[in-house]
Amino acid sequence: SLNIRLAVIPGDGIGREVVAEGLKVLDAVGLKLETTTYDLGAARYNATGETLPDETLAELRGFDAILLGAVGDPSVPPGVLERELLLKLRFELDHYVNLRPVKLFPGVETPLAAARPEDIDMIVVREGTEGPYAGAGGIMRRGTAQEIATQESLNTAYGVERVVRYAFDKAVARPRKKLTLVHKTNVLTYAGDLWSRVVERVSAEYPEVTTDYCHMDAASMFFVTQPQRFDVVVTDNLFGDILTDLGAAIAGGIGLAASGNVNPSPKGSESWAPSMFEPVHGSAPDIAGQGKADPTATILSVAMLLDHLGLTEEAARVEQAVADDLIGRQTAWAQRSTREIGDDITARVTG
Amino acid sequence: SLNIRLAVIPGDGIGREVVAEGLKVLDAVGLKLETTTYDLGAARYNATGETLPDETLAELRGFDAILLGAVGDPSVPPGVLERELLLKLRFELDHYVNLRPVKLFPGVETPLAAARPEDIDMIVVREGTEGPYAGAGGIMRRGTAQEIATQESLNTAYGVERVVRYAFDKAVARPRKKLTLVHKTNVLTYAGDLWSRVVERVSAEYPEVTTDYCHMDAASMFFVTQPQRFDVVVTDNLFGDILTDLGAAIAGGIGLAASGNVNPSPKGSESWAPSMFEPVHGSAPDIAGQGKADPTATILSVAMLLDHLGLTEEAARVEQAVADDLIGRQTAWAQRSTREIGDDITARVTG
Ligand SMILES: CC(C)[C@H](C(=O)O)[C@@H](O)C(=O)O
Ligand SMILES: CC(C)[C@H](C(=O)O)[C@@H](O)C(=O)O
Repeated sequence: SLNIRLAVIPGDGIGREVVAEGLKVLDAVGLKLETTTYDLGAARYNATGETLPDETLAELRGFDAILLGAVGDPSVPPGVLERELLLKLRFELDHYVNLRPVKLFPGVETPLAAARPEDIDMIVVREGTEGPYAGAGGIMRRGTAQEIATQESLNTAYGVERVVRYAFDKAVARPRKKLTLVHKTNVLTYAGDLWSRVVERVSAEYPEVTTDYCHMDAASMFFVTQPQRFDVVVTDNLFGDILTDLGAAIAGGIGLAASGNVNPSPKGSESWAPSMFEPVHGSAPDIAGQGKADPTATILSVAMLLDHLGLTEEAARVEQAVADDLIGRQTAWAQRSTREIGDDITARVTG
Repeated sequence: SLNIRLAVIPGDGIGREVVAEGLKVLDAVGLKLETTTYDLGAARYNATGETLPDETLAELRGFDAILLGAVGDPSVPPGVLERELLLKLRFELDHYVNLRPVKLFPGVETPLAAARPEDIDMIVVREGTEGPYAGAGGIMRRGTAQEIATQESLNTAYGVERVVRYAFDKAVARPRKKLTLVHKTNVLTYAGDLWSRVVERVSAEYPEVTTDYCHMDAASMFFVTQPQRFDVVVTDNLFGDILTDLGAAIAGGIGLAASGNVNPSPKGSESWAPSMFEPVHGSAPDIAGQGKADPTATILSVAMLLDHLGLTEEAARVEQAVADDLIGRQTAWAQRSTREIGDDITARVTG
């Protein structure tokens, strides 16, 4: 079978605990797996001042995929690890698709009174490399009464089209075949105009897909009142950031939300780089080291990783093991530790 | 008693129906009221091409306040009335506070399974005149593969400080005295830096107020999972747009969400201009003319208008009438028309 070379960045806090369980499950799938661990994150930053050294980045490019736990610690100034490690990886490895399923598994409690699993089953395709995340902007007359601060969203036809195409490919492969563009075209007229035109143009190539548009403010409302409206959502980097946290909330919480930072280029092509999979949650320093973290989001991220590598059957097996474990939680009286949850899911994977 | 000169813009669709009920309630409060109606909106635009003529804008400046229903119709190109009428009024009349209470009234159904009225009781103070709404940006090489579209958020110390001060004033007057800045400072570093520094600086003048910060993505999640975290929220124009629709959703829907576009300058000062009150919902052409619209959001906007004019007692009376009507809805078997709801609330106001 395939030999997978995996870079692992456990990170900080609960990141290390959940990654251990993710790897346990991955091992159980029965692949040839070679892992190399990188100690990036708060500890490394505090010790050496380094976030993502050039040599490390160069090494990372050589792996088939990357698994990340979570980074961050109160000892590090806010924003540093986010921008110089997490976002830098997305930009450098051209992870232009930030793939975030929003799916309510049977047995999972949602804060929404009326939602059933069949109502919450969508994929948010968030653009990952441009928009308001470009870092463009500036400050003039800082600290004075005349200060101005600008923040610029940069959108290119190149960048928008490739992520829109990816979203249409996802939509056409799903039973409902529906794609919704979420933006705020009535106010963000320049960026909105580009996004709308690209979606309209590409939609002509996907006649089977029903294409829809929803303003971001209305979409936030509909996530709560009518999540069944959505099948595949495509949106920009910032709207996607917000919508996917909201999506995590309605689908049972951040402890279950998986994500993939995907570079969809064919392996071997010049634009290829390893994709990175990570739970949406952070390093949660308040509960770190106590075995309290739920590793499920990481394990679901492992399933996405397998799927991305073409190991469809293995991915489905892991996702099914998680689904079965989640159903069991309804009747389980015991509070399980991070490791116990990982063990239980691993046992289901091995069968 | 005070003589109030009110400009009324019923607008389109259900806007006209709900405004009629709002005015009915306002009449019942027992003020000297002079109203002048302006036919701005889709009908006027389709007939004359006009959205907000200069003379009309000049006239509007002479009123004590403005009540707006809703504008918009599928016959008008999307964005035109939003920008050339609604946003233009906010900008021209310097409505730098967009005030949006998020409050779950007893008796009202919320989509959140676990939320009780005491959990959802906050005020969102949304900046109304700058940020990503400034209209700055552009498109280059439109329609080509090399197209780029930019959209710029413009933030000034002047603009941020005045709205932040307003929010602190609101917070200090509330029992919990808590203010939360919502932004995305770890990514939108320039704008986020300005907002954070202004909040920190102004907070020194309000030692009784607990000041808090929450990223926009996390805030969206907490609106659904822990709305009790929030008392007064201050945020930029775009985040506020999104959060208040989400707020409307958790507090029983867009049929109940009121808003004020407020210019808080003292009457008589050079920067004064009339404030405008409006329901958050749109013109809903699909149900227009059928008496199906809920006028409650407009009536609550009328209460905000009264409060803004210093008619605190009258405002409280209208809000109480709405609260009583809402409790009644739990047991009412009859579907009431727009007018019937207006009549019932009016009857409660007159006592
Ligand atoms: C940590 C932060 C930079 C990141 C983002 O904004 O994308 C996070 O919120 C996410 O959604 O992955
Ligand atoms: C109609 C639109 C321009 C407006 C906005 O974006 O502010 C609306 O969504 C609102 O919240 O009042």
